[in-house]
Amino acid sequence: MRKIKVAILGATGAVGQRFVQLLANHPWFEVTALTGSDRTVGLTYGEGCRWILPEPIPEYAKDMQVIPTEAGFEAALAFSALPAELAREAEPALAAAGYAVCSNASAHRMWPDVPLLIPEVNPDHTALVETQKKQRGWKGFIVTNPNCTSTGLTIAFKALQEAFGLRRAFVVSLQALSGAGYPGVASLDITDNVVPYISGEEDKVETEPQKMLGRLNGGSIEPAPLRISAHTNRVAVTDGHLVCASVEFEQAAGPDQAARALAEFQAPALVQTLPSAPHCVVEVRPEADRPQPRRDREAGQGMTTVVGRVRADPLFHVKFVVLSHNTIRGAAGGAILNAELLVAQKLI
Amino acid sequence: MRKIKVAILGATGAVGQRFVQLLANHPWFEVTALTGSDRTVGLTYGEGCRWILPEPIPEYAKDMQVIPTEAGFEAALAFSALPAELAREAEPALAAAGYAVCSNASAHRMWPDVPLLIPEVNPDHTALVETQKKQRGWKGFIVTNPNCTSTGLTIAFKALQEAFGLRRAFVVSLQALSGAGYPGVASLDITDNVVPYISGEEDKVETEPQKMLGRLNGGSIEPAPLRISAHTNRVAVTDGHLVCASVEFEQAAGPDQAARALAEFQAPALVQTLPSAPHCVVEVRPEADRPQPRRDREAGQGMTTVVGRVRADPLFHVKFVVLSHNTIRGAAGGAILNAELLVAQKLI
Amino acid sequence: MRKIKVAILGATGAVGQRFVQLLANHPWFEVTALTGSDRTVGLTYGEGCRWILPEPIPEYAKDMQVIPTEAGFEAALAFSALPAELAREAEPALAAAGYAVCSNASAHRMWPDVPLLIPEVNPDHTALVETQKKQRGWKGFIVTNPNCTSTGLTIAFKALQEAFGLRRAFVVSLQALSGAGYPGVASLDITDNVVPYISGEEDKVETEPQKMLGRLNGGSIEPAPLRISAHTNRVAVTDGHLVCASVEFEQAAGPDQAARALAEFQAPALVQTLPSAPHCVVEVRPEADRPQPRRDREAGQGMTTVVGRVRADPLFHVKFVVLSHNTIRGAAGGAILNAELLVAQKLI
Amino acid sequence: MRKIKVAILGATGAVGQRFVQLLANHPWFEVTALTGSDRTVGLTYGEGCRWILPEPIPEYAKDMQVIPTEAGFEAALAFSALPAELAREAEPALAAAGYAVCSNASAHRMWPDVPLLIPEVNPDHTALVETQKKQRGWKGFIVTNPNCTSTGLTIAFKALQEAFGLRRAFVVSLQALSGAGYPGVASLDITDNVVPYISGEEDKVETEPQKMLGRLNGGSIEPAPLRISAHTNRVAVTDGHLVCASVEFEQAAGPDQAARALAEFQAPALVQTLPSAPHCVVEVRPEADRPQPRRDREAGQGMTTVVGRVRADPLFHVKFVVLSHNTIRGAAGGAILNAELLVAQKLI
Repeated sequence: MRKIKVAILGATGAVGQRFVQLLANHPWFEVTALTGSDRTVGLTYGEGCRWILPEPIPEYAKDMQVIPTEAGFEAALAFSALPAELAREAEPALAAAGYAVCSNASAHRMWPDVPLLIPEVNPDHTALVETQKKQRGWKGFIVTNPNCTSTGLTIAFKALQEAFGLRRAFVVSLQALSGAGYPGVASLDITDNVVPYISGEEDKVETEPQKMLGRLNGGSIEPAPLRISAHTNRVAVTDGHLVCASVEFEQAAGPDQAARALAEFQAPALVQTLPSAPHCVVEVRPEADRPQPRRDREAGQGMTTVVGRVRADPLFHVKFVVLSHNTIRGAAGGAILNAELLVAQKLI
Repeated sequence: MRKIKVAILGATGAVGQRFVQLLANHPWFEVTALTGSDRTVGLTYGEGCRWILPEPIPEYAKDMQVIPTEAGFEAALAFSALPAELAREAEPALAAAGYAVCSNASAHRMWPDVPLLIPEVNPDHTALVETQKKQRGWKGFIVTNPNCTSTGLTIAFKALQEAFGLRRAFVVSLQALSGAGYPGVASLDITDNVVPYISGEEDKVETEPQKMLGRLNGGSIEPAPLRISAHTNRVAVTDGHLVCASVEFEQAAGPDQAARALAEFQAPALVQTLPSAPHCVVEVRPEADRPQPRRDREAGQGMTTVVGRVRADPLFHVKFVVLSHNTIRGAAGGAILNAELLVAQKLI
Repeated sequence: MRKIKVAILGATGAVGQRFVQLLANHPWFEVTALTGSDRTVGLTYGEGCRWILPEPIPEYAKDMQVIPTEAGFEAALAFSALPAELAREAEPALAAAGYAVCSNASAHRMWPDVPLLIPEVNPDHTALVETQKKQRGWKGFIVTNPNCTSTGLTIAFKALQEAFGLRRAFVVSLQALSGAGYPGVASLDITDNVVPYISGEEDKVETEPQKMLGRLNGGSIEPAPLRISAHTNRVAVTDGHLVCASVEFEQAAGPDQAARALAEFQAPALVQTLPSAPHCVVEVRPEADRPQPRRDREAGQGMTTVVGRVRADPLFHVKFVVLSHNTIRGAAGGAILNAELLVAQKLI
Repeated sequence: MRKIKVAILGATGAVGQRFVQLLANHPWFEVTALTGSDRTVGLTYGEGCRWILPEPIPEYAKDMQVIPTEAGFEAALAFSALPAELAREAEPALAAAGYAVCSNASAHRMWPDVPLLIPEVNPDHTALVETQKKQRGWKGFIVTNPNCTSTGLTIAFKALQEAFGLRRAFVVSLQALSGAGYPGVASLDITDNVVPYISGEEDKVETEPQKMLGRLNGGSIEPAPLRISAHTNRVAVTDGHLVCASVEFEQAAGPDQAARALAEFQAPALVQTLPSAPHCVVEVRPEADRPQPRRDREAGQGMTTVVGRVRADPLFHVKFVVLSHNTIRGAAGGAILNAELLVAQKLI
C-alpha cells in the first residue's frame, strides 16, 4: 500500500509534538507537511520547536520546514493540533479546500454535522461526513476527537451503556499538567497545590459524552439521555487524567457485573484491525489502589483505558476510577485512530 | 483563671506535634504530660521526637520527659493523637480513671454514647457525656473530633442543612500527605502521581457527617437522613484537604442562596467566645479558581473552612469546593476547640 | 516620627508583591505609590494584580491606583522590583529626578559608583552615594541589593572572611521557583525534574560577592581577592535557595572554628537597631540534614541566613550548606533593610 | 548457547525489581531463583512483592517462589540487591560456596581484592578475582558495581583522565528518590523541599572513583591520585542522579577539548560486544539546559551517561553536569553489564 500523505497543523505545540512522535514509522501515513505560527514559519522543525517530550525528536521531522497553516500543502489528510481560536477559521477553510481534517481542537466538536468520534464507541457516526460535505459544499470534511477528559470516561461509559443503559453520572477529574499545553500551568501555581478549576472543561465533560453515546438518526445525532455533573481539577502530574465516577444505570447492576462489562468490552471487528487500536480497550485492575497516573498511563502504549476500584455506590449503582493518557489516547493518538477508521471505512 | 493541666497522648507523631505546637501559650491549658511509645519513653521530647513542622519545637516541650500512655499523670484532660489501634484500649482506660479524653482517633467516634463533635455544628451533643459516664461507670469520658476530611465538609453541610435541609451528596476528596501521618506516604508513590485510595476513609466520610448532623434524642443520636457517596484520593500536597461536593437539598435552592447561607453561617454565641474559634467559620471565595490548598489552608490560623466555586449542579442542586486544614481544623485544632467547649459548658 | 513616603516600582510582579506585603505596617515607611505596566495602569492594585502569595493582599494596597513608572509620584524613596530591562532606563531617570531608588534589579549592581549593599556585610559602601550624586549630577541616587543566591552566601562569607580571610570557593545552588518570577518556570519543565541552568545566574554569583566583600577605597570599591566557581540549578521548591559551598581560607581553620565564626557573627550596632534586621544574622543548625528549604526558610521572618553541615573539606578547608529566603532576604526584605540603613545613616 | 542460570538476591526490593525487569529475555542469562526476606519466603514473587515500577511484573517471575538467601539454589551467578547489612554475611558465604556474586551492595566494594567494576572504565580489574579466590580459598567470588552517584561520574572522569589526567574534583549531586529504595524517602520530607544530606554517601563518592580509576598492580589496586570533595543532596525526582562537577586536570585543557574527549570516549572492543553495553557510552548535549533527569535518564535504555554544560571553570579547568540513571546504569543494569563482562572474559 502506498502511504497516505498527511499534514500536522500546529506541529510545534505540546499536542503537535505528540502527533510528530506517534506518526514516525506509521504503517499507513507519511508526514509531508508541518505547519506553525508566524514565529516558526520558515525555520526547520528542529529549530522552531521547543521539544518537550522525553524521547528525542524523530529524525524525519528535524529538517522539515515549518509552513503556514493554509491550503496548498500536498496531503490528503490534516491532523489538527491547533488552539481552538485558530481552528475556528483554519479547519473549515482546509475542509472546503478538500482536506480531510482530523482535529483535536474543541472548536467544531459540537457542530451537528461533525462527528465527535471514538472508534470503539461510535464508529457509525462517521456517516455525518457525507451530510457535512453535501450541506456545506465542501470537498473535504472535519472529524473531531473529544476532550482529553471525556475520552477515557466515554469509553468506560460505552461499555456500561451497552450492558445496562446509563441514566446519570457524577464525575470528578484530577487532570495532568500536559492537558494545559506548554508552557501551560505555572509551577508556582501547582507545587504543593491543587487548582480546582479548568476553564471551559466542565461544560465539555458534561456534554461531549452525550453526543458520542447518542444515536445517529438520519443526518444528525440524537444525544444520549445520560445526564452528567462534572468537577474538574488540575493536579501536579505530568501525564494521565484520572476521573472518579459514580453512575446510575437504567437497569440495576452491581460492581461485579459492571467490572465484567468493562473488562469484556470490545471494539467492533473493523476497529480491532486498525494499527493504533489497543489490544485491550479497557483494562480492569483488581488492586484497591489502582489505576494511578504514573504507573498506568502507558498501558497499551497509552491507548488503553484503565479502570479500577469498581464498587457499589450508596446513591447510584456503581462507582469507579478511570485513567486515560491525555496527550496520547485523549489527543494525538485518538485523532490518529480516527483517521485510521476513516481510511478503513474508505472515507479517505 | 488557673490553667487546666492537660496531657498529650502520642505526642511525638504528626498530629501529636500539632497539639504540642497549638497548645504553646494556650490561655486556658497548660501541658503537663507528653506520652509516647516504648521507643521514646524516658527520653526528653526534644530527643524522642523527629519534629517535622516548619516552625521550631516550642521551648516548653523540649525538655519534658516522655512518659508511657497510662493513668497516673497529673492532668484533668488528655488530648489523644494515638493511632486507632492504641486508642482502642488506652482511651477507655484513661476515661475510666477519670480523665476527660478529647480524641482525634477514629476508634470510638461511632460509639452511640460518644459525642462526635464540632462546636459550630453540634455543641448540644456533649450531653452524651453524662450518659456515657453513667452507663459505663466512668469518672471521666471520651469526646471525639471527626476525620480530617469529614470536618470541613460537615461544617459546610451544617450551614446548608440549616438553610435548606440536605438529602444527598456526592463528595470527592483530594487529600494532603500529612493526613497519613509521618513517615506516611512514600515519595515514590506520590511524585508525579495520584493515589485514588485511602484505607477506611470513604466509609468515615459517608457516615460521620450523618452522626454530627443528627439530632440528640434522649441519650443517643438519631442520624441525619442525609446520604453520602464518597471517593477519596491522595495528592502531592503537604497540608489541606480539598473536597468537591454536589448536594441535593430538601428545599430547592440555587448557588446564590447557597453561597449566602454558607457565608452567613455563624457559630452559637458560646462557641464564638472560645479562644480557638475562628473569627469566620466559613469563608466564601468569589474567584473561579479558589480555594486552593497552598493558598487558603492558613485561613483563620487554619481553623476557617474555605468554600468556593458555588454553582448550579446539573443533577442535584448545587456544587462547590471545600478546603480545610487537615492537621489543624481537622485534627489537633479541632480537638482543642472541643475541649474549650467542654470547659465553657462546665463539663471539665 | 513622620513616616517616609515610598513607592513600589513594578508592584504587581512576584517581588513587587513581597514589597507590598512587607511594607504593610512598616514603622518608618508608608506606601504612597504603586507603579505597573501599561496593562495595569489605571486599574486598582486589587484588579491589576494576580496575587500569588498565600497571605491575602494587604488592605492598604487593594484600592490604590496603579500608576506608570515615571517621575511625578509623591515619595522620597522608590523600591524597585522592575525587570532588569525596564530598570536600565527607569531607575537612572528617577534617581536624576531626586528619588532614592532601592533596587532589587540587576541592571546597575556592578556600576562602580552604585553600592551593592547588605547592611550586615558592607554598610560603609553607602559612602558611594555621595560620589554617585556628584559624578552624575543627580539629586537622588541608586542603591542595589544583590542577586537572591548571592545574598545568603555573602553573609556567610562575610563571617568567614572576617575570621580567617577567604581565598577560593566552590558553590552549587539549588534554587526555588519563585526566583524566576511569575509565571516563571513551567510546571512541565520542573515536575519530577531538575533544570541545571539559570540564565545569567552563575556570572552574578561569581562576581557580586567580590564587590560586596571588597574594600571602599576613596570613591570606589576594590573587589575582594576571593575567587568563586558557581553552578546554579532550579529545583521544585516554592521558596528558599539552598547553596552547597566549599571554601578555602587565607588562614587555615577547621569546621568547629568556622561554625563558631558563623554563629557568633553580628551586624554592626547601627544595623542591629533597624526594624527589619533579623535578631539572629546567621543561625547554625547542628543536625546532619539541615537546613532544608521548606523547614528553615521562615527563620527570622525570612531574614535570617541558616547554615548547616559545617564539616571538613578534602580539598579546601571547610564545606557547608547555606539557606536563604530568596524573595524576602534575597529580594524585597533585603531592599527594605537597605533603605532602613540609609535612613539611619541620614542619607534619606 | 545454553543460558547461564542466575539468582537475584533481595529480589523484592526496589533494585531487586529492576534486576527482575532487566533480566526478562536476557540473551545469556535465565533467572532460576529469587530470594527474599522471611516475610516473603514461601510466597510467589507476585504475592510477596509490592511492585513499584511503571511497567508490569514480567510474566516469568510472577509465579516463582521466593526462597531464602542461602546457598543451595541452582545457579552459577547471583545478582545481589541485598541491603549492605545483609550483604555483609550473605555474599561471602555464597562466594565461598561457589557462586559468582555480582553485587550492587556497598558492603565489599572497598575490599582490596574485590573488583569495583565498570566495564567501560576498568575491565582489567577483574584480574582480582583470581587473587580473591586464592587468598580466601573460595570456589566463587564477589564483584561489585559502584554507588549510583559514583557510576556516571566515574565514566565521565575516565574519559577525562585518559585525555588529560585528573588531579582534583568538586562534585555536588542532586539525587533521585529511588536511590533510597522503597518506601525510602517520606513524601512529607521532600515535597516542596530538598534534603542536603544522604547518610554515608559523600564518603562513597569521594573514594570509589579513586579505586576504579586506579591501576592494577599485581594483586591489588593502586588508587588514582585524584582527590574529590563531594556534597550530596536528595531532590524530588523519581529516577536519575544529576551531578555538578568542576575538575582540575594534570594537563591544562579547555571546555572544547574536554567535550570532545567525553564525546569520543569508547569502551574497549570486548565491552562493546556485551548485550547490555550502551551504543553510546557518553552522550554530550549541546543545549544550555541539559541534561535533565526526566528528559535524559532513559538515554541508551538508561545505560548511557549524559553530559552537558561543559564550560570553563574559574578555579579549576572545566565544569560540567553529568546525569546517569541510578537504578539502571547505577545499580541493576551496571551489575548485569559486569556479569556479561565476566562471561566474555571466561571468568564465569
